[in-house]
Amino acid sequence: MSDILQQLAQVLEARKQADPESSYVASLHHKGLNKILEKVGEECTETLLAAKDAEHSGETRDLVNETADLWFHSMVMLSRLGLGPDDVLQELANRFDLSGLEEKASRNS
Amino acid sequence: MSDILQQLAQVLEARKQADPESSYVASLHHKGLNKILEKVGEECTETLLAAKDAEHSGETRDLVNETADLWFHSMVMLSRLGLGPDDVLQELANRFDLSGLEEKASRNS
Amino acid sequence: MSDILQQLAQVLEARKQADPESSYVASLHHKGLNKILEKVGEECTETLLAAKDAEHSGETRDLVNETADLWFHSMVMLSRLGLGPDDVLQELANRFDLSGLEEKASRNS
Amino acid sequence: MSDILQQLAQVLEARKQADPESSYVASLHHKGLNKILEKVGEECTETLLAAKDAEHSGETRDLVNETADLWFHSMVMLSRLGLGPDDVLQELANRFDLSGLEEKASRNS
Repeated sequence: MSDILQQLAQVLEARKQADPESSYVASLHHKGLNKILEKVGEECTETLLAAKDAEHSGETRDLVNETADLWFHSMVMLSRLGLGPDDVLQELANRFDLSGLEEKASRNS
Repeated sequence: MSDILQQLAQVLEARKQADPESSYVASLHHKGLNKILEKVGEECTETLLAAKDAEHSGETRDLVNETADLWFHSMVMLSRLGLGPDDVLQELANRFDLSGLEEKASRNS
Repeated sequence: MSDILQQLAQVLEARKQADPESSYVASLHHKGLNKILEKVGEECTETLLAAKDAEHSGETRDLVNETADLWFHSMVMLSRLGLGPDDVLQELANRFDLSGLEEKASRNS
Repeated sequence: MSDILQQLAQVLEARKQADPESSYVASLHHKGLNKILEKVGEECTETLLAAKDAEHSGETRDLVNETADLWFHSMVMLSRLGLGPDDVLQELANRFDLSGLEEKASRNS
């Protein structure tokens, strides 16, 4: 489970060059950065609404789906600008003193 | 690197019960779901603005920081509603036919 | 010009009951509050992106269009919940000590 | 009531040049466009959350306040980029065939 974002990043890189007619990711890149950012904003709104509905109903299925959409489109945004999930995860690791790539590398030596 | 979100989820669970005076995460829980969702929305806006600035300047440091803020606060939201990163990662794994927890479990048997 | 929002509010009330097949406003009401709020969030994101583009290009046409979309959909939201633009304008008048409805009413007496 | 936005626009223009220490509007301009857009995004999120709460509670006071915040900060944004409410209202008038400035001007001639 723990390397899903890294696997997904590889899929996103491969699809960057795909046919916009057949690949959703390629179609986003074809439309440009603004279209990708609109999707990030849209999925954020849908995540907030799903969280409010979960608060009242106790049903969390929609919230999981919308959060997946939000993370997915933020990964497309990172890929668009030459970044990947490890850049973000390393930042989180640094902030919370978690063992990330850098520490693992030093432990191996 | 690959289990940073899982490590972070453990930190978030532990801090749920901490003193709101000394822990930022505890202070968010103390203020309630709306405050947590306001932060998710706020960080999403800052991510979009950082991406637009990166488009023009080529500087991506702010974008990494803001995306880390966005993922972090969406993790607090998940934790608030009884969910964790694995729920979202499993959903992404299912969509993209990536090997997640379920497959790993079956491989171990 | 100054009573455009009030004129628009009348149009929105009338279209609430229209056929969802032929009226966009009726179709939003038919889909429910979440759909209306998704549109508000979507148009807010597009407004922010248009403002960033205007900052760099000096072209403001898109920004005017997107802000009109944002105000329009927030008017549909108000109408959905039994409110209208005068509720918001009265609040702004009170905050900034501007002459709103209440003062005009007293001036007429 | 109907010219509140125009009155507010005059206040916003006057405060552009005020002391950032004593005027909130001046402090926003001093911090720059991104800060203004962050506030627009923030108030949009708070509006959506207030609308969801109003849906459940029937209480609409917060929603009026948050929508006023959203319109107010979008007016600061317009002012920042050399625009005003009449630009947006004229666009809405054109779309909905309402009588705006242009028609009034022709009526006066």
